[in-house]
Amino acid sequence: MFYIIGLGLCDEKDVTVRGLEAIKGSSRVYLEAYTSILMVQKEKLEAFYKKPLILADRDMVETESDEILANADREDVSLLVVGDPFGATTHTDIILRARALGIPTRVIHNASIMNAVGACGLQLYNFGQTVSLVFFTETWKPDSFYDRIKENADLGLHTLVLLDIKVKEQSEENLARGRKIYEPPRYMSIRQAVSQLIEIESLRQTGTLSPDTTLAVALSRVGGGSDNQRIVAGTLTELVNHPEDAFGDPLHSLVIVGKRLHHLEVEYAQDFAVDVERWRNSAKKVYGCALD
Amino acid sequence: MFYIIGLGLCDEKDVTVRGLEAIKGSSRVYLEAYTSILMVQKEKLEAFYKKPLILADRDMVETESDEILANADREDVSLLVVGDPFGATTHTDIILRARALGIPTRVIHNASIMNAVGACGLQLYNFGQTVSLVFFTETWKPDSFYDRIKENADLGLHTLVLLDIKVKEQSEENLARGRKIYEPPRYMSIRQAVSQLIEIESLRQTGTLSPDTTLAVALSRVGGGSDNQRIVAGTLTELVNHPEDAFGDPLHSLVIVGKRLHHLEVEYAQDFAVDVERWRNSAKKVYGCALD
Repeated sequence: MFYIIGLGLCDEKDVTVRGLEAIKGSSRVYLEAYTSILMVQKEKLEAFYKKPLILADRDMVETESDEILANADREDVSLLVVGDPFGATTHTDIILRARALGIPTRVIHNASIMNAVGACGLQLYNFGQTVSLVFFTETWKPDSFYDRIKENADLGLHTLVLLDIKVKEQSEENLARGRKIYEPPRYMSIRQAVSQLIEIESLRQTGTLSPDTTLAVALSRVGGGSDNQRIVAGTLTELVNHPEDAFGDPLHSLVIVGKRLHHLEVEYAQDFAVDVERWRNSAKKVYGCALD
Repeated sequence: MFYIIGLGLCDEKDVTVRGLEAIKGSSRVYLEAYTSILMVQKEKLEAFYKKPLILADRDMVETESDEILANADREDVSLLVVGDPFGATTHTDIILRARALGIPTRVIHNASIMNAVGACGLQLYNFGQTVSLVFFTETWKPDSFYDRIKENADLGLHTLVLLDIKVKEQSEENLARGRKIYEPPRYMSIRQAVSQLIEIESLRQTGTLSPDTTLAVALSRVGGGSDNQRIVAGTLTELVNHPEDAFGDPLHSLVIVGKRLHHLEVEYAQDFAVDVERWRNSAKKVYGCALD
């Protein structure tokens, strides 16, 4: 059996009991290490599982999947992924490959940011499509995410914005010279994300995002409890000016609040507001929320 | 500490290790038993946790939450919910109440249908807002879900449709007479859901849903592995005519496929198709998907 096991969002204890059993019964266990990051080191996972883990980078999962799947028709092999297995396209690829090889597969689900985002108090029913935001460079500023946010905003819906991570990337020079030297991992910060949003709004000028009145919620390390989890709510301007370290460690995600905002959502999230007064004011006056 | 712990989708082994630790350390453990159902009986959970569980129905969670929260500032109390704690509004209510009482809370996340729906091969990025479908009666056929599906469809997005469940409901007569006699639980079936969709389409006639060409995917018991999980893909007509028992036991959910369908999604889901030929044909001709 080939297992793909979601590890959840936080640390070694977020695996499910079913997932843990599958890990313990597997002859090889791979840890996928590029579509997201766990808040814990490989060594800590190995100590907890009492199993060695084989790191699987993008090349391995995408182009050498037969190596991962070897013998999985006769013994149990597990691939561990952060969050839930269906967050990233690559996992459907490897399942399709397993099917083609006649290897039975089983997915063990877990929390992912796609549902845990509810922790900020915004109702999952009020979210539209999720978008991804990639690092801008001087010459490359892909902005199709803006159209998606606008589509959601026009319907009054919230947008979950997933922020880029760069793991095992090569510099242009190293890539050109074929040198397998990798840059340190980079995680997009909330400030960078918000400033990219404001940059595109200033180019497009559709009024979808208004720095001083559009509300947003920044989340980091959801599920990490009071020690780790950070949720910060405010206008885009407030978030871009908020101290970097107040957002906590990566990964960060961002929610752009839509007009279909309910007063209960406002009240729940105000606990995380940079400025409660301004949060409620914008909700009332700009979003038309019925608050006292 | 007041814990709200997601149990995941399937059975007693879908709790996380962190969740299990919190349960074992709690002096009282409540099991919320109305917004969804787990595929396992209370007694089996109790045996697994080695703890008695107190059933918490809607009245208790919504109007008697102080009873649940009693002493949670001095000892650990857990409320167990199926899926993830942020699927239903009521859990934000009880957290707000705990905050007001100065009781520290912690949410332990898990998989819910909102992310596990990815198991059918449709990409989570391509989903719009989620809708709920309630049981129609002779006199009450609320159809606002249709507008939401249309909003998603107009953007080419998939829609996750959650199907109604009725737990601890009273008949009109028993309600009128104040008799606390409850009807057996009812779960909306795929066939009923699809026929309600078709009924509203025939009233509205916007062309959002076309019984013979609109593709949909039915899911039941996601996460239950090959023994339990059922995924069936086809046109609305195919699903409404499909044998009831082929969909497996409740809970059922439904996805209406949007036009932004990717060929990889078609290929993954065709494994679940009632008729692979018709599935691919509709994807190609009606959805404009680039398939061989």
